[in-house]
Amino acid sequence: MTSFTTDQVQAIRRSRERVAKLHGELTRYGLVVWTGGNVSERVPGTQHFVIKPSGVDYDDLTPDNMILCDLDGTVVPGSAGSENNPSSDTAAHAYVYRAMPHVGGVVHTHSTYATAWAARNEPIPCHITGMADEFGGEIPVGPFAVIGDDSIGRGIVATLEGHRSRAVLMANHGVFTIGKDARDAVKAAVMCEDVAKTTHIARQGGALVDIPEGKIDALFDRYQNVYGQKPQGGIA
Amino acid sequence: MTSFTTDQVQAIRRSRERVAKLHGELTRYGLVVWTGGNVSERVPGTQHFVIKPSGVDYDDLTPDNMILCDLDGTVVPGSAGSENNPSSDTAAHAYVYRAMPHVGGVVHTHSTYATAWAARNEPIPCHITGMADEFGGEIPVGPFAVIGDDSIGRGIVATLEGHRSRAVLMANHGVFTIGKDARDAVKAAVMCEDVAKTTHIARQGGALVDIPEGKIDALFDRYQNVYGQKPQGGIA
Amino acid sequence: MTSFTTDQVQAIRRSRERVAKLHGELTRYGLVVWTGGNVSERVPGTQHFVIKPSGVDYDDLTPDNMILCDLDGTVVPGSAGSENNPSSDTAAHAYVYRAMPHVGGVVHTHSTYATAWAARNEPIPCHITGMADEFGGEIPVGPFAVIGDDSIGRGIVATLEGHRSRAVLMANHGVFTIGKDARDAVKAAVMCEDVAKTTHIARQGGALVDIPEGKIDALFDRYQNVYGQKPQGGIA
Amino acid sequence: MTSFTTDQVQAIRRSRERVAKLHGELTRYGLVVWTGGNVSERVPGTQHFVIKPSGVDYDDLTPDNMILCDLDGTVVPGSAGSENNPSSDTAAHAYVYRAMPHVGGVVHTHSTYATAWAARNEPIPCHITGMADEFGGEIPVGPFAVIGDDSIGRGIVATLEGHRSRAVLMANHGVFTIGKDARDAVKAAVMCEDVAKTTHIARQGGALVDIPEGKIDALFDRYQNVYGQKPQGGIA
Repeated sequence: MTSFTTDQVQAIRRSRERVAKLHGELTRYGLVVWTGGNVSERVPGTQHFVIKPSGVDYDDLTPDNMILCDLDGTVVPGSAGSENNPSSDTAAHAYVYRAMPHVGGVVHTHSTYATAWAARNEPIPCHITGMADEFGGEIPVGPFAVIGDDSIGRGIVATLEGHRSRAVLMANHGVFTIGKDARDAVKAAVMCEDVAKTTHIARQGGALVDIPEGKIDALFDRYQNVYGQKPQGGIA
Repeated sequence: MTSFTTDQVQAIRRSRERVAKLHGELTRYGLVVWTGGNVSERVPGTQHFVIKPSGVDYDDLTPDNMILCDLDGTVVPGSAGSENNPSSDTAAHAYVYRAMPHVGGVVHTHSTYATAWAARNEPIPCHITGMADEFGGEIPVGPFAVIGDDSIGRGIVATLEGHRSRAVLMANHGVFTIGKDARDAVKAAVMCEDVAKTTHIARQGGALVDIPEGKIDALFDRYQNVYGQKPQGGIA
Repeated sequence: MTSFTTDQVQAIRRSRERVAKLHGELTRYGLVVWTGGNVSERVPGTQHFVIKPSGVDYDDLTPDNMILCDLDGTVVPGSAGSENNPSSDTAAHAYVYRAMPHVGGVVHTHSTYATAWAARNEPIPCHITGMADEFGGEIPVGPFAVIGDDSIGRGIVATLEGHRSRAVLMANHGVFTIGKDARDAVKAAVMCEDVAKTTHIARQGGALVDIPEGKIDALFDRYQNVYGQKPQGGIA
Repeated sequence: MTSFTTDQVQAIRRSRERVAKLHGELTRYGLVVWTGGNVSERVPGTQHFVIKPSGVDYDDLTPDNMILCDLDGTVVPGSAGSENNPSSDTAAHAYVYRAMPHVGGVVHTHSTYATAWAARNEPIPCHITGMADEFGGEIPVGPFAVIGDDSIGRGIVATLEGHRSRAVLMANHGVFTIGKDARDAVKAAVMCEDVAKTTHIARQGGALVDIPEGKIDALFDRYQNVYGQKPQGGIA
């Protein structure tokens, strides 16, 4: 049986609260429909993460029905919410947490415009400065992979390792994002759909203009270091 | 005069509550405007179904103004809500319930992107895994048919019999979906519009990439058997 | 000074309440931004109509700040709300009420998709049955006209007289709709944008299929006579 | 240390309240995601302006966390909210207030359709009368410029000086708008996205029709002088 220290119990509670609440950002920005999409967070100071249950309405998500898993994706027996199954994407989240120790949050959606690029297996090119800020260049495409083994997790990691983007379009599927915590990964999911939509619409209207050489790097460097109320530094 | 057992009365009440509430999902996802669209549910343990009244505002739908019909689409005299007319699509719903005994719910909308494919009489091709999960392949087109006889109902049944899709695009008209109950049919309506939109946008941007051979079947089989908190099994 | 009977005073009050509330449908369906768009209603049993004030926030519209005008578009001195100016489109509404005695409501918006067709001076063709139901065929384009004289009102009337459509796209401008009362005109505005959007998206994806000959007439005739809880009969 | 008269203190309070509240219009109209976008207002009777803090959630904006800056963009030490950083676009706002004394409000967004035109470095042409009313012609494109020096501010001013438009598309970036006060600049941001969207969709469907010669000027002149409850006169 798994036992936790008092500090760990409190950290788990805080992650449950954050993860439950952050799912509201997915519906606010229209990134998900019905019970699709999921957010998880690595619980600081533990070898566990918290993730959404499978097939539960967004209106019914609470800290207590979030599901606590170890890094193999196994539900902690007897923990709150463990009477339900975790998200069917749990294995992919677990793979990412095992392979990328600096990642503290993972999000998956089938948001419309990102998935449209994914259906063409086409990376989103970087033609707007806000995308340079957030992703440091294009958003790449990962391999076609289906649920049932480690292939989705491996595809995410193989694509994002050594890449500045925190988002990957999985071929014919949807988008996975990573971040230093769940909120950062949710932000990446929101921004990914935003740039997927803007860039799609821009290109439908005619030829896109390139950002001048060197400026994408400059924008990314500045944004990762100075934006917001305190240095964020992305997940690098 | 129709008489019901106590169990049937309670089952009718629960269907009224579910059907009234599920209409809120149509507005939440923007699948309907004004008083368009309708949801019905076969009442378990009876030869009846419950459907939306005609021309009543979505804000005003309650369990008590849902309308109880027999499987010929005739309103049960004296039942709650029977002072109003049932949806003008009632005959189509009734036909489906008579012809497809495994169907427990039917939904009709003119949702924008699904209707756009219908205006071209073009099936929605399956290029995204979420669509393979939910529909097992393309969403087919049914014949052109107008209200006034059984032709809409016959068109729905003729198209969906022997098809894995729970959604059919009726030519130049809109979409009908079926499910094991009303909630399942509403889910199909929500997912149909979602994939209609994503696939439209994807194709506007360039050529779609095919899902590898055999994978659509594999995705559909898995999803129908293991997704969610308990086996769903679709309506098959 | 204008004097009204007790019945007229009550009818004016009811029109003020309906018109104020119906503006909420314009925002609900996203047909307007900022203070754009307007709804008016001919007050039954009077020679007057009620219309939105100019440049007032949608959040601040109430029955008491709706503006009462005679059929020349002149504000009734001393009436509630008369310290404000009426909508800058008041002259166009007044012209319609004078010229078309069967019209009881008028709506004007710059809703996105309808205005897009208007910017091309292109009628919206009828390829979906819901449009046949509601408009009986294409939605026509009226002449280019600017505020400052009767030209907008004349353009609306000249285009809609003898046409089954209750909506007209004014060239490079936006849409005006008419109805038997304000609610009916608002419905036409909602449905016009809905079909403008669906038909635009449908055509972007490829060639539209025609509705079989004779079926548009059949659909229109049925819908005008039997839909809803009681015969509506359009405004004819 | 900066000292203010009682009147100035009250004027600052009112600007804080207006600016905090006006950010709600950016989310209402979907012009921003996450913490992007910002509104500022020159405080009447002072050499200061109020602006949004950097990286704070829209839900958490209040009059007290708006940030008071002098016209060099330096935060007033010890003022409410000064524990946070001002928007990273503060230097651009400050530049505009210094260079354009008639400007009382500035807004910046990455709204989808405006940014799509910006990604092509293409001005939005004027084919709809509502755009002629509001902007008096096309919405121009400013130079590519990045945060870090005065280049964004200089680009805005160089483009808008001598132009009737209150909006400028900054190349590959987004939109800046100016107004006589913050509300007027927010209105310009809302209208800019509206016309960017309508004109994009219109052109996707075919060739746009020109507004007759001379009519754009006539529309702009009328709108700036007579619309609304009292003369507005734009910012001229």
